[in-house]
Amino acid sequence: MLSQTVEYALRAMSSLAYRPSELVPTPELAEITKVPSNYLAKVLQTLAAADLIVGRRGVGGGYRLARPPAEINLLDVINAVSPVERITTCPLGLENHGASLCPLHKRMDEAARLVIELFGSTSLADIVSGEGTPQLPLCNEKMTQQIRIDLGKG
Amino acid sequence: MLSQTVEYALRAMSSLAYRPSELVPTPELAEITKVPSNYLAKVLQTLAAADLIVGRRGVGGGYRLARPPAEINLLDVINAVSPVERITTCPLGLENHGASLCPLHKRMDEAARLVIELFGSTSLADIVSGEGTPQLPLCNEKMTQQIRIDLGKG
Repeated sequence: MLSQTVEYALRAMSSLAYRPSELVPTPELAEITKVPSNYLAKVLQTLAAADLIVGRRGVGGGYRLARPPAEINLLDVINAVSPVERITTCPLGLENHGASLCPLHKRMDEAARLVIELFGSTSLADIVSGEGTPQLPLCNEKMTQQIRIDLGKG
Repeated sequence: MLSQTVEYALRAMSSLAYRPSELVPTPELAEITKVPSNYLAKVLQTLAAADLIVGRRGVGGGYRLARPPAEINLLDVINAVSPVERITTCPLGLENHGASLCPLHKRMDEAARLVIELFGSTSLADIVSGEGTPQLPLCNEKMTQQIRIDLGKG
């Protein structure tokens, strides 16, 4: 239902959320997220255009989050790539419908509402906090251990 | 969130659900659904390939539902065009995740679950029954009046 591009954008943002103050080079992000480099480069450009990340070119360059992970929710990321919109008026433009949706468009609007609620209430910080599940997004066993040690130190 | 094609497929199926035993010509469907004819023709071919509708060519030809409206739910229609799938194993193929999803993929799977539940529990008959709302899918004022008269007779 959510596109491949949305999946890749969420992976990229999650990997940046582990190191919010660092510029992470694109090749490293491609390795962590398992996204083909060219595809990832385009996704990162889209995220930068939406002011969710900032990039720096050249040696030592890369991308970092534009705001702390607690201030970016998953819906922000999804909307940057492929906006989820409520249905507010009849998509067919029927005059007798207007803002009073028919049963079909009510259901479609309800789906949008549920998805907005779910992803709008989850921040990147929630996703990478390491609480609640043994699995951390994008992390193999070694990376998970390292992050848990770092979190313990913090 | 749901694609244009999904929207068009749902419109086409709803319009056929009002007259489940009739072959409706494509140009008439295009007019009711307000979908460009060429685009609609492709959507109808996809729905026929998924055995949700059956078509007949030539004079007096058109499309009708393959089953009664009560036996086709909105999820069947969506899945014919763009399948909604639960996430059952780590999309990155991480060995330490496997079927134990991380917080990111848990949320994404939860979104799929909510959408499947919503559309899987609503049939085309529910959508066009004319109960609960003054608005009927795809119907202007005149069509709504006619359908309500027909329902009254039935």
